[in-house]
Amino acid sequence: MRNIREESLELHKQSKGKISVNVKVPVNDANDLSLAYSPGVAEPCKEIFQHPEKVYDYTIKGNLVGVVSDGSAVLGLGNIGAAASMPVMEGKAALFKAFADIDAFPICLNTNDAEQIISIVKALEPTFGGINLEDISAPNCFIIEERLKKEMNIPVFHDDQHGTAIVTAAGLTNALIVVNKRMEDIKVVVNGAGAAGIAITKLLLNMGVRNIILCDTKGAIYKGRENGMNSMKHAISEITNKNGVAGPLHEVIKGTDVFVGVSVAGAVTPEMVRSMNKDAIIFAMANPVPEIMPDAAKASGAAVVGTGRSDMPNQVNNVLAFPGIFKGALSVFASEINEEMKVAAVYAIANLIQPHELTSDYVIPNAFDDRVAEAVAKAVAEAAVKTGVSRKKTELENLV
Amino acid sequence: MRNIREESLELHKQSKGKISVNVKVPVNDANDLSLAYSPGVAEPCKEIFQHPEKVYDYTIKGNLVGVVSDGSAVLGLGNIGAAASMPVMEGKAALFKAFADIDAFPICLNTNDAEQIISIVKALEPTFGGINLEDISAPNCFIIEERLKKEMNIPVFHDDQHGTAIVTAAGLTNALIVVNKRMEDIKVVVNGAGAAGIAITKLLLNMGVRNIILCDTKGAIYKGRENGMNSMKHAISEITNKNGVAGPLHEVIKGTDVFVGVSVAGAVTPEMVRSMNKDAIIFAMANPVPEIMPDAAKASGAAVVGTGRSDMPNQVNNVLAFPGIFKGALSVFASEINEEMKVAAVYAIANLIQPHELTSDYVIPNAFDDRVAEAVAKAVAEAAVKTGVSRKKTELENLV
Repeated sequence: MRNIREESLELHKQSKGKISVNVKVPVNDANDLSLAYSPGVAEPCKEIFQHPEKVYDYTIKGNLVGVVSDGSAVLGLGNIGAAASMPVMEGKAALFKAFADIDAFPICLNTNDAEQIISIVKALEPTFGGINLEDISAPNCFIIEERLKKEMNIPVFHDDQHGTAIVTAAGLTNALIVVNKRMEDIKVVVNGAGAAGIAITKLLLNMGVRNIILCDTKGAIYKGRENGMNSMKHAISEITNKNGVAGPLHEVIKGTDVFVGVSVAGAVTPEMVRSMNKDAIIFAMANPVPEIMPDAAKASGAAVVGTGRSDMPNQVNNVLAFPGIFKGALSVFASEINEEMKVAAVYAIANLIQPHELTSDYVIPNAFDDRVAEAVAKAVAEAAVKTGVSRKKTELENLV
Repeated sequence: MRNIREESLELHKQSKGKISVNVKVPVNDANDLSLAYSPGVAEPCKEIFQHPEKVYDYTIKGNLVGVVSDGSAVLGLGNIGAAASMPVMEGKAALFKAFADIDAFPICLNTNDAEQIISIVKALEPTFGGINLEDISAPNCFIIEERLKKEMNIPVFHDDQHGTAIVTAAGLTNALIVVNKRMEDIKVVVNGAGAAGIAITKLLLNMGVRNIILCDTKGAIYKGRENGMNSMKHAISEITNKNGVAGPLHEVIKGTDVFVGVSVAGAVTPEMVRSMNKDAIIFAMANPVPEIMPDAAKASGAAVVGTGRSDMPNQVNNVLAFPGIFKGALSVFASEINEEMKVAAVYAIANLIQPHELTSDYVIPNAFDDRVAEAVAKAVAEAAVKTGVSRKKTELENLV
């Protein structure tokens, strides 16, 4: 029997972490040093001082992503702090490299103060080409991302929100083909109003879904609800649940076509699946145990089921999105990652599976499908150019 | 004829910077991912949350140095800003790796506010095992280092101050053997009251020099001088220049045994060397052109001359010090780099040259002498243990 706990601790201990910083120019003798360091290094410095955009020519910045966390919402572990979040941030950096050849580096901060985090990340702008926010608790994650997007000139992306949303939307796009329904016609219920649930809801609205209700532990979120609200839920209540449906999930789910769960194990029962419309689609992404297991969901009439697990079909894995998204954004010096770029990523992921290949157990490409990052990068770069957020070097001059 | 400018720009452009972030564990399939990332990564996270000191077991932290700069005093280029300082900080990171197998990473900050820099670096403590401050202008460099040393539990070291001081002191130690003089007896004049000049003066005092005068562009710094002073110069005036000598360098230098220059090309004339005591020792470290060229100094009676240049004998190169110093400090989880550790580094460097090998042109080991980093690390680690700043893992528990 495999013991993941022991194997993981052993792996981390043996290697003392998962990333290293390496030298990619020769530094073997005085001649090498005179180019890579003093006195030759003064030349790129002077060039960048004169022409700030050349920092992308002469340094690692253009391929470098900071993986920023305060350790306040790590995996399912909660607020374990910055030091304890290091293995996750190193792991994320490793995935950036392995999946998209992007250099990424953990920036784990021992403060939970949103203003301080904003100030720190802004001060780091000269170093990084992009910022991936990770495992920061709500509502700080929303506040920090929104402010940084406005106040920085490099792409900022909170993966827990948008990565999950993009891959879920890609899976849903293909699942709808399988069951022959359209975005415009479906009724969707999203359970879990944290970072991912909010982002999924917004992205699905952007992709044409008209009827969508977001639930939290107190049931449907509707305009005018008073208990357990916050600013994000208020904002969502304005653009979802047009009919003002109230009530717990087991009532709200009745007669819907799609359930998206970013909540807790067991949140969905077989009865609830049976109460959904014919050919229901279920994305049950609670980790490590889904809201309902795929077998049980299918036995209750679900047509397509996805989870967050690598040992089950249709895995919603962020690694399908973030490496290619940053690669695309960095490749055209995009100033941000906007909605159009996210939607482009959705279709790039979905379209990797040809219509004739689609089955109920294959609506999302495999995490190790090596076409994914490149396809996503290409689509995202094109969307950046089309929406005018890509920059030519000359335009960068005053922005760096 | 070699064109360092073109070669350096070409090197930097071809490689897009000089460092990369790499993955040191396998991430080739779902099994690898389940250990390095979700769900296995939760295990080291939980361990670190329970036992904070285990961050040194399971992450890169224990071998990771942040190279922090605001770009305010870069090489001889001055305040060129954080982005333009990136090539230097990447270069420094490359040297850490090449000379001591330490992972190091540039942290270039677009703020010159000392309080903000202090706050940012403190917030980064969970990520790094040590902090190398670099190319930060005075007096901020002093303020920032002093505060961070007090307020952080990992080693903080401003290399422009202490690296130069340590290598200079090592060279002087050996030079005194060559000319058969003693630290206690010599008269020293240091020209240049910036970060390096102040640090050299303090270190030489710690190593037994009794008679030392620090000069700036206004001449000797003495107690009660009023023009061109700052808090560091005031402090130095209390512990140097006991006789209150005033006057310009060309007068102060008369009858001294040692000149140490961290100032500007041409600051020392042959006449000034001739006015020094017999067997004068000159460290003329202005870059790229020394205060006086070695040939001219020797023709005027100097017995030993060192410079900052790799194409001349006795190169005072910081790379002899900082890689081994951090390696030693990190190896015993030192909480700081104290005076005793610096002095230990001085003697470790000096002692690599056996007495019978010493000549006027060989008082400092070659920068590429591969014994250096190891010898320095060993001496520094021993000094850390002896002075009680090394920590056992159990002692780290509440410090991380």
